[in-house]
Amino acid sequence: MTPLITLADINAAAARIAGQVDRTPFLHSATLSEVTGADIWLKFENLQFTASFKQRGALNRLLGLTEDERARGVIAVSAGNHAQGIAYHAGKLGIPATIVMPTSTPAIKANRTRDFGAEVILTGRDFAEATAAIPALVEERGLTFIHPYDDDVVIAGQGTVGLEMLTDQPDLDVLVVAIGGGGLISGIAVAARGLAPGIEIVGVQSERFPGMAHHFGHWPVPAGPGVSIAEGIAVIEPGRRTRDYVGTHVDRIEVVSEALIENAIALLLQIEKTLVEGAGAAGLAAVLAQPERYRGRKVGLVLCGGNIDNRLLTAILQRQLAREGRLIRLRADLSDQAGALASVCAEIGALSGNINAVTHDRAFGEIAARSARVEFEIEVPEPEAAERILARLGELGLNPSRF
Amino acid sequence: MTPLITLADINAAAARIAGQVDRTPFLHSATLSEVTGADIWLKFENLQFTASFKQRGALNRLLGLTEDERARGVIAVSAGNHAQGIAYHAGKLGIPATIVMPTSTPAIKANRTRDFGAEVILTGRDFAEATAAIPALVEERGLTFIHPYDDDVVIAGQGTVGLEMLTDQPDLDVLVVAIGGGGLISGIAVAARGLAPGIEIVGVQSERFPGMAHHFGHWPVPAGPGVSIAEGIAVIEPGRRTRDYVGTHVDRIEVVSEALIENAIALLLQIEKTLVEGAGAAGLAAVLAQPERYRGRKVGLVLCGGNIDNRLLTAILQRQLAREGRLIRLRADLSDQAGALASVCAEIGALSGNINAVTHDRAFGEIAARSARVEFEIEVPEPEAAERILARLGELGLNPSRF
Repeated sequence: MTPLITLADINAAAARIAGQVDRTPFLHSATLSEVTGADIWLKFENLQFTASFKQRGALNRLLGLTEDERARGVIAVSAGNHAQGIAYHAGKLGIPATIVMPTSTPAIKANRTRDFGAEVILTGRDFAEATAAIPALVEERGLTFIHPYDDDVVIAGQGTVGLEMLTDQPDLDVLVVAIGGGGLISGIAVAARGLAPGIEIVGVQSERFPGMAHHFGHWPVPAGPGVSIAEGIAVIEPGRRTRDYVGTHVDRIEVVSEALIENAIALLLQIEKTLVEGAGAAGLAAVLAQPERYRGRKVGLVLCGGNIDNRLLTAILQRQLAREGRLIRLRADLSDQAGALASVCAEIGALSGNINAVTHDRAFGEIAARSARVEFEIEVPEPEAAERILARLGELGLNPSRF
Repeated sequence: MTPLITLADINAAAARIAGQVDRTPFLHSATLSEVTGADIWLKFENLQFTASFKQRGALNRLLGLTEDERARGVIAVSAGNHAQGIAYHAGKLGIPATIVMPTSTPAIKANRTRDFGAEVILTGRDFAEATAAIPALVEERGLTFIHPYDDDVVIAGQGTVGLEMLTDQPDLDVLVVAIGGGGLISGIAVAARGLAPGIEIVGVQSERFPGMAHHFGHWPVPAGPGVSIAEGIAVIEPGRRTRDYVGTHVDRIEVVSEALIENAIALLLQIEKTLVEGAGAAGLAAVLAQPERYRGRKVGLVLCGGNIDNRLLTAILQRQLAREGRLIRLRADLSDQAGALASVCAEIGALSGNINAVTHDRAFGEIAARSARVEFEIEVPEPEAAERILARLGELGLNPSRF
């Protein structure tokens, strides 16, 4: 095995990138500490300019290029945070950047990358096909390929996250870090082992993409294919170089459910007022999954990214409302005559129910003739309001039920 | 006029509350600076434990009580951030707290206040009626009433926000601060005038509640009644004591539309990955409303609170999707036969449209017999996808249109 990088490399990366990436806050969360029983500290990497830690490794790699390599330019394959990190810093440094994305990439992502001055090449139906286009472009244009994680210089850049966490709070007991390709945890682990040798380092993957956990025998099935709420760590094949780091430095890898990641996203928004993507919530999900493992210990979590699609976020919030009993659906049997709907709507409104949707059904259901089964979707300020509405509709003989 | 407090009072408040409220981050926003043309700095008061600056004034007031007053306890009227601030710090200090709320207050808010150890009294149909219950309770129980803003000690506590902003960035040119009762801007203005006499201080109110702006002749109509997206600054009558501060120190008051506040909430979430309530977005809304006033200047905005209801947030995000052209509605005429819907759904899906809802209409509309008008609500990854779907449905002779 090629020797791993050390704390000295991460210190050097920190000095090199200083002032060009944000030194993000690392803050205590009183409420999450109370909820979990652990002492929870959050590293806000979602507040980086491109809303992810990826800038650190990208910038460190770009600053390590020779003059000649800078002049010829770089190439990367990514539709996500790595693309933004490379394109942004290459643009600032005047280094030509080519970013390869699958043809299915939404124009908004391609445009954002172009806005930083990068050339975007859309090719291939998926990530694997897009990647296949790289060697010819490297050959033809003399570009330097920057891998998102299997690269020691990139790993050193990501490690500066861990350096900052342990500089701010040297007595952390455990770090919980999401694993996709594994670059972030590799760098953080080197920094943490250097500064606090006895610290526990835990990786987290989604149940849909447990590639690294599977590789190390912590999980029975391999990753994907499929989709995950944590797109940023939806990596099928664990990184090759990062396996060396994970095998050497990481104590264990937890696998968490998609539902718990979704719940952690909602909690971070509601409690911490901060927006994370799925990967950024994975660490909290791991603590929520097994709080007994972390109870009474000082835990550092990395909110590693904040790029979540608004559509996905809206769906998560709606499901959260339903889980909290604040978005409900109920059926009632109304007499099929003028004014019946108005009067039941008035009853619901008087009990603080805000009606989103009403569906009438005259043809189906086991109900008496001359009446209509009506379905309501209702927002309520609190679950108790739903109970009051059900009780009132029952008093009125409308045979209400939730569904 | 009673003499106003000075910078010395705010320094004293800062020393008194240090370590018991968070010294929140004050961070530069590269993207909002680019969007507005100003140099935008954000004070993250939404990251306070109770997610608002109100803790500062509440704690400063509680720490200023005599031993005897502490033993007898305090009372406040609020269903919002002031209630949380008082209840939380009174609980920590072991001071009995009574919080009066209107009976319409959602149980979730009352419970959260009770969780801090406060007694909650639900009385009165609205805020005015709840307030009317105070004098008798003060009399009967010997409690000290803590006003949310018409109180110099509370104002001194809120002023610590300004102290921190100008300590971190002494060369700010202008501060833009939301006004409800006026406590926050009063304190901040004293701190800012003390540290940077030439700084410009701008207040912001919602078009629905422009009470202070109206009082000072900056706006033709008075406040409310009604509802505002910025509940925290939906105050009908401007504060009495705070008028002295605003009249002395504030340069002007802007009034912004509800729509722009909503837009600013969405921008702060999408760009800054941070969740604010309406009041917390008002400052950015003012800059967006008149960017020419701020161009090239160093602007401090206070994200003064983060307590926004999930239902409201979900609605804001959905409207934002519609505004961005990523949630669309369209009509098409389908032949009324088996398989027709399946085939059009397949076409929409192939063009990346994710169908949320389908409504059939056989009875209405000017369409040929033997066909059905069908309405779709569709999520698309980008506005261009909507155009592609419309074009394709047109090619198929389905007479599509958006509505």
